[in-house]
Amino acid sequence: MTQYNNTRLLQALKRQPVDVPPVWLMRQAGRYLPEYRALRTKAGDFLTLCQTPQLATEITLQPLRRFDLDAAILFSDILTIPHAMGLGLSFQEGEGPQFAKRIETARDVKALPILEVEENLDYVLEAVRMIQQELQGRVPLIGFAGSPWTVACYMIEGSSHKNFINARKMAYQAPEVLTALLEKLITATTAYLKGQILAGVDVVMLFDTWGGLLTPAHYPLFSLTPMQKIITNLKADPNTANTPIILFSKGAVSHLEVMADSGADALGLDWTSALSAARTRVGAKVCVQGNLDPALLFSTPEKIKAAVKSVLNEWGPHPGLIVNLGHGIEQHTPIENVQALIAAVHEG
Amino acid sequence: MTQYNNTRLLQALKRQPVDVPPVWLMRQAGRYLPEYRALRTKAGDFLTLCQTPQLATEITLQPLRRFDLDAAILFSDILTIPHAMGLGLSFQEGEGPQFAKRIETARDVKALPILEVEENLDYVLEAVRMIQQELQGRVPLIGFAGSPWTVACYMIEGSSHKNFINARKMAYQAPEVLTALLEKLITATTAYLKGQILAGVDVVMLFDTWGGLLTPAHYPLFSLTPMQKIITNLKADPNTANTPIILFSKGAVSHLEVMADSGADALGLDWTSALSAARTRVGAKVCVQGNLDPALLFSTPEKIKAAVKSVLNEWGPHPGLIVNLGHGIEQHTPIENVQALIAAVHEG
Repeated sequence: MTQYNNTRLLQALKRQPVDVPPVWLMRQAGRYLPEYRALRTKAGDFLTLCQTPQLATEITLQPLRRFDLDAAILFSDILTIPHAMGLGLSFQEGEGPQFAKRIETARDVKALPILEVEENLDYVLEAVRMIQQELQGRVPLIGFAGSPWTVACYMIEGSSHKNFINARKMAYQAPEVLTALLEKLITATTAYLKGQILAGVDVVMLFDTWGGLLTPAHYPLFSLTPMQKIITNLKADPNTANTPIILFSKGAVSHLEVMADSGADALGLDWTSALSAARTRVGAKVCVQGNLDPALLFSTPEKIKAAVKSVLNEWGPHPGLIVNLGHGIEQHTPIENVQALIAAVHEG
Repeated sequence: MTQYNNTRLLQALKRQPVDVPPVWLMRQAGRYLPEYRALRTKAGDFLTLCQTPQLATEITLQPLRRFDLDAAILFSDILTIPHAMGLGLSFQEGEGPQFAKRIETARDVKALPILEVEENLDYVLEAVRMIQQELQGRVPLIGFAGSPWTVACYMIEGSSHKNFINARKMAYQAPEVLTALLEKLITATTAYLKGQILAGVDVVMLFDTWGGLLTPAHYPLFSLTPMQKIITNLKADPNTANTPIILFSKGAVSHLEVMADSGADALGLDWTSALSAARTRVGAKVCVQGNLDPALLFSTPEKIKAAVKSVLNEWGPHPGLIVNLGHGIEQHTPIENVQALIAAVHEG
């Protein structure tokens, strides 16, 4: 077993007492850091960075050198799986992801290959091993995947779309095609997260960015159940059973209770929902991670300190809080404000 | 007083019994209709259509000729106010709205002119008069405006942006500038809606498309309170006090109780929230309008009929339901499915 210098995140995930709550930030490795931008200019586009273990390792570690973060998170993307399935992912500057092929029919779903993680996504596993080598137990490493529904949204739409209307249409027009696609993604995501855990990640997170686009009837069917199946798969395998799982369905706070019954150890909360309400509703069952507004980081260190104090007071003396943003850190976030946020959490 | 042939909407808004619930559709006048597309090709761009009373009248009436709708809604846009204030609105094909000038500083806010509705937005008032002339009391006419927060989002961002990060940043960096902007918009929107009511609209609706982007602390401050002030202004004036007001904050279902205390007569619900929960929470105070998924309209008449039945059952025998979509109708929606939806509501 790895001996960690900083066990706050792992303790919080077991809902054990901690000296101060752990803090990390979604997209903490990324574009707001000048050293990331420098590397990107030198080394290539976003996909190249993800696919080159040395570069992914360096980028994962960059924020850890600057900030007193309680966790590292693998630098990668939620669309590695469909890319590995041959859909031809690219990122146009300022445009978001774009696939060369879209999923439209049962035939398209059937044609998707079974993912061989060790082979098709070896670059991710190699990055995990290299990062853990470098971290030397300083903090735990979080691995991740997109939720099947969220990944399906991009595969069906072919790119980012504010409403993912084509994926939502498929839920009505051809639910059996959507279900078949989700089943393939459940299998692939289970294998992918098992691979990440065996390669060394300490925690895994499921990013369900688009679960909040579904109706009350469709959310459990198409978003939650597939995630639940992955969680069940991981918890059923002795090699992965002890790895904590964080589930983050953005914009889906109405469904918090059923999420808490999914088997996940922690639930992510976006910035539009109250932490205290979440604690009352599910705090006896799961940890809660969140939920500062990424826009707050454009104010001043004083305002950030006050906002953090208010979050800590709102949560109270209960176990199981992981401080984070309610969405990824924004591109032009000032470094000193990130510093102020982390210091404020650790000052308590 | 106008004598209406169809009073379902007005009765439902008073929470009085109706034979069957009223139904209308957000964006019912628009791009999914071939006659709209034909007119647009012939007559000019979106802004020209809005600004030409004869064309706005024709477009408002188009869906009424095809469908047994229980209300007409003025064909216009939520950005007419900032356009009239001189920010230079344009719509690029497939790109959404674009302003020539953005609001960034206190000086920019100060420079905004006081709106003279009769002068600057006379084309809207003229369209209302022409539509009522044509409707002859067949169904009530709904007028509308964007909420101050939502309109401010576009004025600050300069265009549509999925997260409106600049508007959200201003809420932290310069709340006094945002508040000053919202105050100007409260005044302008009050005058605008009064003008619409005096010109003849029977109901007004506030579209708060981006209220759901705010934190639990910022929503009441920057989204709800400005809307509440407009409602108070309208209810305090004997000329407008009896006109029912519908408030729609998309993605803000957590705030339903405080919305119900705003003085609005009805609350819009988006497609991600359960109608039954809304009825339990606020159904004793206000009407509820919604909330079918616009994506449902891409399925079949049979599925739509079943979904409508399920909505009507979910609501039960209570007064105060207005059937609508939970968001605007999508561009490629099949006409026969719209027909099926409306028929299913009226069959009960």
